[in-house]
Amino acid sequence: MGREERHSHKGSWRKWMIPPDARDSMNKNKMGLKGPLKTPIAAGHPSMNLLLRKTFDLYANVRPCVSIEGYKTPYTDVDLVTIRENTEGEYSGIEHIIVDGVVQSIKLITEEASRRIAEYAFEYARNNQRTSVTAVHKANIMRMSDGLFLRKCREVAETYKDIKFTEMYLDTVCLNMVQDPTQFDVLVMPNLYGDILSDLCAGLIGGLGVTPSGNIGANGVAIFESVHGTAPDIAGLDLANPTALLLSAVMMLRHMGLHSHADKIQTACFDTIKDKKVLTKDLGGNSKCSEFTGEICRRVQDME
Amino acid sequence: MGREERHSHKGSWRKWMIPPDARDSMNKNKMGLKGPLKTPIAAGHPSMNLLLRKTFDLYANVRPCVSIEGYKTPYTDVDLVTIRENTEGEYSGIEHIIVDGVVQSIKLITEEASRRIAEYAFEYARNNQRTSVTAVHKANIMRMSDGLFLRKCREVAETYKDIKFTEMYLDTVCLNMVQDPTQFDVLVMPNLYGDILSDLCAGLIGGLGVTPSGNIGANGVAIFESVHGTAPDIAGLDLANPTALLLSAVMMLRHMGLHSHADKIQTACFDTIKDKKVLTKDLGGNSKCSEFTGEICRRVQDME
Ligand SMILES: CC(C)[C@H](C(=O)O)[C@@H](O)C(=O)O
Ligand SMILES: CC(C)[C@H](C(=O)O)[C@@H](O)C(=O)O
Repeated sequence: MGREERHSHKGSWRKWMIPPDARDSMNKNKMGLKGPLKTPIAAGHPSMNLLLRKTFDLYANVRPCVSIEGYKTPYTDVDLVTIRENTEGEYSGIEHIIVDGVVQSIKLITEEASRRIAEYAFEYARNNQRTSVTAVHKANIMRMSDGLFLRKCREVAETYKDIKFTEMYLDTVCLNMVQDPTQFDVLVMPNLYGDILSDLCAGLIGGLGVTPSGNIGANGVAIFESVHGTAPDIAGLDLANPTALLLSAVMMLRHMGLHSHADKIQTACFDTIKDKKVLTKDLGGNSKCSEFTGEICRRVQDME
Repeated sequence: MGREERHSHKGSWRKWMIPPDARDSMNKNKMGLKGPLKTPIAAGHPSMNLLLRKTFDLYANVRPCVSIEGYKTPYTDVDLVTIRENTEGEYSGIEHIIVDGVVQSIKLITEEASRRIAEYAFEYARNNQRTSVTAVHKANIMRMSDGLFLRKCREVAETYKDIKFTEMYLDTVCLNMVQDPTQFDVLVMPNLYGDILSDLCAGLIGGLGVTPSGNIGANGVAIFESVHGTAPDIAGLDLANPTALLLSAVMMLRHMGLHSHADKIQTACFDTIKDKKVLTKDLGGNSKCSEFTGEICRRVQDME
């Protein structure tokens, strides 16, 4: 999927629309794999990432963060998943100028979206052999909105007695996260908190170059994506690290139930990193992107 | 200052008011040192911390995070300061039920408060031999509110040519922070982002037990506080770690221009930690709170 300007209604955000081919493909296959896109900061150009999430009602943003053997960071044994509400909260897009110099942004929390994401988190935990879910909130400050979110999490937790439920303030989670990330398992939270926490957690295991991500909707619809930037400085130089996109593809395969294919690619990828012989620059090596992927493909073939 | 319920207007938040003695003292001395307070989560009881910040218009929340020699964490050489707008943003307290199951919270950003905190950050940088200020924002999402905040930072930056100015998305800051905190110097941001980031940064250097904090208003008014919890489980057992409160007192002394007194206490405190002989439990030792403070006092006396 790429950036395209199709219409020319001046100043209208519709200028910035999902390329019809990508939309048709999504409607037909219900599944997408997406590389990074640049988010323009200028008014009138909403983020394409957000547009995709909205258009296909991809309400759950799922980011597993697992320590990668052989890729050294200050942390080991990180193994957690952030599950972010992907459709509302601070991302409502509703903002007003009240008077000159006074602006309000509206954070929208609904019972329905909160219940839905809580249910997703507990289902995910159960289906992925995980034992606990932590609801992340600031209900001490946003008592009504985060309060509603938290209440729905509590209600849903009641119906998943096999999964341990805890709740924690966002600031406390951040503090505890950098002190000992191994204490966390599945975390569920409103939109903005998920944006922050998923990047923080990615940082613990080596950054966005190695973390996959999935945007999940109802009825199996999903878009998987690498969430790092577009790195325009190395465009076309065969230097990019494809790990995040590859692991996102692995997540996609699992989502489709193709577990043995997923396992093979994942193992080949992690083994290549552990082996340290063929690595892209950002991973500490000297190899080109094509050499790194070549090595992964070779390992996949060896498994056949 | 302690928790007190003075009035009994049922359901009114005024029940929960600043103790008159504390208020009188603040009005007279313009300066306070405060221990932790419990924030009730029940409706109708706003946080006393927030009430104090509002009542005395303490618009800048300042938290220096500096690695402590001898107290091991995964990071070394952290030396940064978070400067948080303390009066508005997501902490406006304005929330509504739109219809059943749909709640909105209002994030309020004003030109005045944004300019004021930006100016504070640059002044702070200049007066504390710091070289750069990073504005932390999500103006790609909250274009109008964070956009306004960012614009004011840019404007103020123009008038401080001696200080390097950069801007960064909050999620990117979190990611970069856990990967290499030494790249940051002074960070300035809206209220909630500061709440999150200051705790994250505290985690990098050992937690809230060792991080001081100051809430600064106009005309020298200020309240310094330790921001850790009340630890009711160890109340009265002489086990608490007083470092955060002590370093907050040190910040207060500096704020009053009493630098040599501040230096002495700070050195005595850090030397005690580095020495590792007399430490409270949470710092890895076996000593009581009174023994730890006794050791610090002894060192201060030795300097006289
Ligand atoms: C690109 C941006 C709009 C997006 C967000 O803020 O959600 C990104 O940070 C992410 O996490 O996917
Ligand atoms: C106690 C709570 C209201 C407060 C906040 O959210 O600001 C605390 O976390 C802080 O950082 O001082």
